[in-house]
Amino acid sequence: MSGLLWPGDERAAGVLDDAAVLAAMVAVEAAWLAGLVEAGVAPAGATAHPADLSGLVGPDDLADLAAAAESGGTPVLPLVALLRDRLRDRGAHEAARWLHRGLTSQDVVDTALVLGARDALDAVTAHQRRQLTLLAELAEAHTATPAVARTLTQHAVPTTFGVRVAGWLTGVLDATRRVRDARAGLRVQLGGAAGTLAAAVELAGDADVVRALADATAARLGLAPAPPWHTVRGPVAVVGDALVAATDAWGHLAADVLSLTRSEVGEVAEGAGGGSSTMPHKANPVLSVLLRRAALAAPGLGATLHLAAATAVDERSDGAWHVEWETLALLARRTVVAAGQATDLLGGLRVDVDRMAANLAAADGVDAEQRAMADLAGRPPAASYDGLASWIVSSAVTDARHHLTEESA
Amino acid sequence: MSGLLWPGDERAAGVLDDAAVLAAMVAVEAAWLAGLVEAGVAPAGATAHPADLSGLVGPDDLADLAAAAESGGTPVLPLVALLRDRLRDRGAHEAARWLHRGLTSQDVVDTALVLGARDALDAVTAHQRRQLTLLAELAEAHTATPAVARTLTQHAVPTTFGVRVAGWLTGVLDATRRVRDARAGLRVQLGGAAGTLAAAVELAGDADVVRALADATAARLGLAPAPPWHTVRGPVAVVGDALVAATDAWGHLAADVLSLTRSEVGEVAEGAGGGSSTMPHKANPVLSVLLRRAALAAPGLGATLHLAAATAVDERSDGAWHVEWETLALLARRTVVAAGQATDLLGGLRVDVDRMAANLAAADGVDAEQRAMADLAGRPPAASYDGLASWIVSSAVTDARHHLTEESA
Amino acid sequence: MSGLLWPGDERAAGVLDDAAVLAAMVAVEAAWLAGLVEAGVAPAGATAHPADLSGLVGPDDLADLAAAAESGGTPVLPLVALLRDRLRDRGAHEAARWLHRGLTSQDVVDTALVLGARDALDAVTAHQRRQLTLLAELAEAHTATPAVARTLTQHAVPTTFGVRVAGWLTGVLDATRRVRDARAGLRVQLGGAAGTLAAAVELAGDADVVRALADATAARLGLAPAPPWHTVRGPVAVVGDALVAATDAWGHLAADVLSLTRSEVGEVAEGAGGGSSTMPHKANPVLSVLLRRAALAAPGLGATLHLAAATAVDERSDGAWHVEWETLALLARRTVVAAGQATDLLGGLRVDVDRMAANLAAADGVDAEQRAMADLAGRPPAASYDGLASWIVSSAVTDARHHLTEESA
Amino acid sequence: MSGLLWPGDERAAGVLDDAAVLAAMVAVEAAWLAGLVEAGVAPAGATAHPADLSGLVGPDDLADLAAAAESGGTPVLPLVALLRDRLRDRGAHEAARWLHRGLTSQDVVDTALVLGARDALDAVTAHQRRQLTLLAELAEAHTATPAVARTLTQHAVPTTFGVRVAGWLTGVLDATRRVRDARAGLRVQLGGAAGTLAAAVELAGDADVVRALADATAARLGLAPAPPWHTVRGPVAVVGDALVAATDAWGHLAADVLSLTRSEVGEVAEGAGGGSSTMPHKANPVLSVLLRRAALAAPGLGATLHLAAATAVDERSDGAWHVEWETLALLARRTVVAAGQATDLLGGLRVDVDRMAANLAAADGVDAEQRAMADLAGRPPAASYDGLASWIVSSAVTDARHHLTEESA
Repeated sequence: MSGLLWPGDERAAGVLDDAAVLAAMVAVEAAWLAGLVEAGVAPAGATAHPADLSGLVGPDDLADLAAAAESGGTPVLPLVALLRDRLRDRGAHEAARWLHRGLTSQDVVDTALVLGARDALDAVTAHQRRQLTLLAELAEAHTATPAVARTLTQHAVPTTFGVRVAGWLTGVLDATRRVRDARAGLRVQLGGAAGTLAAAVELAGDADVVRALADATAARLGLAPAPPWHTVRGPVAVVGDALVAATDAWGHLAADVLSLTRSEVGEVAEGAGGGSSTMPHKANPVLSVLLRRAALAAPGLGATLHLAAATAVDERSDGAWHVEWETLALLARRTVVAAGQATDLLGGLRVDVDRMAANLAAADGVDAEQRAMADLAGRPPAASYDGLASWIVSSAVTDARHHLTEESA
Repeated sequence: MSGLLWPGDERAAGVLDDAAVLAAMVAVEAAWLAGLVEAGVAPAGATAHPADLSGLVGPDDLADLAAAAESGGTPVLPLVALLRDRLRDRGAHEAARWLHRGLTSQDVVDTALVLGARDALDAVTAHQRRQLTLLAELAEAHTATPAVARTLTQHAVPTTFGVRVAGWLTGVLDATRRVRDARAGLRVQLGGAAGTLAAAVELAGDADVVRALADATAARLGLAPAPPWHTVRGPVAVVGDALVAATDAWGHLAADVLSLTRSEVGEVAEGAGGGSSTMPHKANPVLSVLLRRAALAAPGLGATLHLAAATAVDERSDGAWHVEWETLALLARRTVVAAGQATDLLGGLRVDVDRMAANLAAADGVDAEQRAMADLAGRPPAASYDGLASWIVSSAVTDARHHLTEESA
Repeated sequence: MSGLLWPGDERAAGVLDDAAVLAAMVAVEAAWLAGLVEAGVAPAGATAHPADLSGLVGPDDLADLAAAAESGGTPVLPLVALLRDRLRDRGAHEAARWLHRGLTSQDVVDTALVLGARDALDAVTAHQRRQLTLLAELAEAHTATPAVARTLTQHAVPTTFGVRVAGWLTGVLDATRRVRDARAGLRVQLGGAAGTLAAAVELAGDADVVRALADATAARLGLAPAPPWHTVRGPVAVVGDALVAATDAWGHLAADVLSLTRSEVGEVAEGAGGGSSTMPHKANPVLSVLLRRAALAAPGLGATLHLAAATAVDERSDGAWHVEWETLALLARRTVVAAGQATDLLGGLRVDVDRMAANLAAADGVDAEQRAMADLAGRPPAASYDGLASWIVSSAVTDARHHLTEESA
Repeated sequence: MSGLLWPGDERAAGVLDDAAVLAAMVAVEAAWLAGLVEAGVAPAGATAHPADLSGLVGPDDLADLAAAAESGGTPVLPLVALLRDRLRDRGAHEAARWLHRGLTSQDVVDTALVLGARDALDAVTAHQRRQLTLLAELAEAHTATPAVARTLTQHAVPTTFGVRVAGWLTGVLDATRRVRDARAGLRVQLGGAAGTLAAAVELAGDADVVRALADATAARLGLAPAPPWHTVRGPVAVVGDALVAATDAWGHLAADVLSLTRSEVGEVAEGAGGGSSTMPHKANPVLSVLLRRAALAAPGLGATLHLAAATAVDERSDGAWHVEWETLALLARRTVVAAGQATDLLGGLRVDVDRMAANLAAADGVDAEQRAMADLAGRPPAASYDGLASWIVSSAVTDARHHLTEESA
């Protein structure tokens, strides 16, 4: 799909779309082949410089590869066949002969998805950092801006807009840490047919050579090395959970913006509201609407990744593995889209402090709790009723700025 | 996505992909415009023959439309703008002026999705009917083929392969009826900005004219007429449930085929097993694997559609509506893919009755229950122990054939 | 759990709680035993009048039965052992000997759950009917009550409150029909160890006798007869879908009430708002809050039932069957709770037509669309702008009343 | 429910059942009240020693409290009223007067759920540690035990049973770390009506006193202090994700045991298989079946917690908060149940190395890959084909033992 039914989709261009997945699969094959040669397992003549391999196939091949993927259940079989054909066409017979030797399809798909997940998590992180900066500024600016708190839809007691923003900030910060941890946990997945790398050991005649080869492949791809995890799918669910958590934080933000931007409330507005096909006066909170959309769908996708992990079986699952692919790609892409939308939302958010004050002033009974407490304490009511607002805001801001400094160091 | 990560995706070509959705949206605009003219609301000069309108935009416009969809939150705003531009370019100024008048974006998206759902449900139905025929034949052929029943993974008592197939048949038949009912429930959705068609009534100056116009638009699109259901999203969830139910039935079939095709069991095999990138001797049950994949993901998508219905709010939901679009499209496309895979699976299924007999003969204690029952009854064990197998098979087959006859009449 | 964490739970007293499930399992055993005697399969001395059997165990046995359920994976094994012990204690040795003969655990659990589902669906139906009456009256009373329509949280164009209520009515009516259909589809599930009723046939020595016995058991339980469906779990998912759909409709209602009852909007209020532990002035829309709670959780439970159907395998699933039990019970009980809460919500709903009028009057640009349409039509704006409001309301009301009359006939 | 429909439920006795939740809520009230006195906010006469308060209510009050919970939407209002009544009955009028002052219902429910989550996570951790020890021993013992690897249900190439167990071990270890991290992240939640602790500040007349009071309350409960997180629900989803991940790991284990224990495979068996109501010879893998059951349901519950976080709104959500309660309790209890079942499964697992050898010997083509690799390498096939099996096992075992040592230090 080109994104007609998921407005904003183009924000995720290059992230786990088919062309990116194809390129990543080729990169895995290239890194392994280079490793085979480097380790002396394959002859020097088998060299196909990664750049060369990546030049052999491209977006024009996608339709054929996708169509051919069904008969074997993965796109790797037709990809390897195609790469071998094209290597032979260019006279690179040794490279054609050694390509993919010692690997299995799952190695290529899994590691390619890890590369795609890395791109997605990095893109999300970059947006989250911008959001933390924007939110910290917004919270500080409104530490003491009076507003009415609403509980179960009803006016409750006074609060400050800064406290509300501090909640958004804390939510995004927590999610940023989950994304960071998921990013740090990404690992290469190379195991061969049964997850023992037996074919590679047979080719190399030496287990240590193969361990080094696997590590070198990981290094070439910029990934951490790891024992095979072909049957242990928790790592995929970890990525999914982090993506869902990121979306949750923006969902919360969007829910509040949508609540505060209602015509009758009017306390905030999106910078550039969306138009209507029939009502030119309207300024719709479109970014918030699209964020809420993502937030409603993400948990179900994350759950599917858990289900895949929970029903993994044998040395290659009979369906539980296959369902991970598009589920992860979809979740990752949508999260990248939402990341950008949330940044834009925060960058343009307009705050109407007068309206906040007016809503507070118009709220019936909003001082009832304070009066009851003052009675109990036997003192007249204090001049303000914002409790720990200042500390709550500064705590959240400090925590966020510490994270931004620490992580960029 | 072109389907690299969902092998088999090309089976759903033309079903709720972006080009098909675009064409359907144009068809809705065309049908309404024709209705406006026909009803005398718009002048005769506003005629843009449906075929003409559909010729104005096409797949080449998708990327621009998708990118432009974000600012208003729907693809309809840029589509209407583009159509008007092109109508004006062709001198059709009246058509440009009257296009979309009285409609709102949601009318166009909803009705286009209904048209796409119709295509999907029809494609699924066609496959289900073929499957019912294949399954009925298979069940009948094996009414009395002895096999061992397995409960909680263990050999239990004898059964027949026909009884097992009768279960698959009943599952597909039940799902066929749900798909049929969902198909029969499809309705046009035309309501204007607030679901009252007030703009159209203002244009027409007469409520009855607008009711007739809405009915005529439905008729042009081959859909049943209905009052606006813009806020009542149960009808979308009904379609989703039927698609999920169809996939459930194939998931059950696939689970059994995967169980029976295990190397140690060997009672059935797919007609053309998939190969392996490293193990040429293997014949993998790829269609079953891909069906199981779909079965693991479909319930989560169906749940998202329910969630959208359950959180609908105001006269146009702030995200709950938007999440329906790609969710429905994805679920529909995957169900069409699975439909074809299930048909192919059944068409090629190889049954090894000797292996079934051998497995039954080798099963320890498989006659224990019969002996206990015979003791209790005070009679020697009967010659066979297949209970109501014959009736169970004939009931299921009769029911399926009755459905096939009745529905085609 | 006694319901501390699901306020309102006591509304579902007697519906698929443990005591009810126990009673239903005993009823299944009793009905089958009576059938065995009646059919002459068991001797007349095996008679244990259903009422007698049901008197042998009760709520005091639940803890022991629950604890003993784990070793065999179902509560039926310890239940049968307990019933036999108590029958023997009372000298009913033949009844003890023949109890459960020809059945398997799954028959007892499945049919007991069907009986519980029936209770739940009946309770839901009764509430839905009351709601249809209340909603029809409310819609009619407010057919022409002016209100502002809100789309994507923003004031859009005028509508009437009756149109909004008509949407709620249509949602509940659609769900009522789904519940009715699910109720009509309930079937006994009796299949014996492998779903062939072979044990019963061995006992009876005659297949026709067993078919009649199964039908008689169904009749005793007030259920429709059916071939065994132990491996075809779509029927459970159908019940789940109907329960979710019912909750969806109330979720939509609750979302609108929560939106309209916001302090700044104030167009409706719950009859008896809930208090606050610290803010005595507040009147919280508690019923709506609790309905929304149910609406957020129900789709996930429905999806689990679909997943169970989609991963069913062999002649008794190795976990997919077991997950259905509590999932269905939980979903059914929560739906009954929500049914009652929705009835109470509608029975007490207070409508503030003055506030609706005031909000509409204060809405900026709410006449922009009408003016644009009037310009296009070349006429002055009409006096009102409620389009087909009257017809929309009367259509929905007529449909609902027709249903109420037809179904009660 | 007492657990009839979730066999094994009694393993979670005392974990987030209603009695435990009630006790935890009382503990929160008691800790806060003690803090008020200690801080000099309430008079010394308001002292109600925590033990005293906890003695005032108990399981006999649950039914009434549950029933009374609906009108305000939480069990806290009736609990506070009941506690005050009973304090007054005992003459503790000052304690009655000061009880709950400065808190809101959400503080009490949230912190009580955190306390319950702590119990659940601790119980899970204890089991995971036992499992790591058992799995490490099992993996080591079978490092070189030959077995056939199965991919997509088909015999593939040789592996060792130790490699398979190393996968289970890694899965459980990864999940153990997630549970540990979730446990470490638990925080008290105290914010008052709007999350500013304004009421407490009004009572104390000093913000610093209230910060100290909140910290002291956390300390009394053995929880880490934190700013209020009433609107930021990610922390609840983190707990949910860890619980789901734990269950995923056991689901994977169970799936493999179920696959390997099939009658035709017979490579492993549960120590004490479950019986059948009609087939006395059967030894069903009941623990694995019940684990798989849990694994199918957990992801949906985790997703509901994410959805709650993603739709949080205002200063107290109108339903999204309420849905967390039973969802978390259910997920936590089921995970504790599964934890114990997994420990028992591993403690009793019987391994049939002869059957593994026989299945490997009987596997067609299982040496095809090795021969192809040897051809390519230009050497005769090596004596074994288990690749990096030894290293894979020792890596996993070392990692697990390191964790066990490090975490207990």
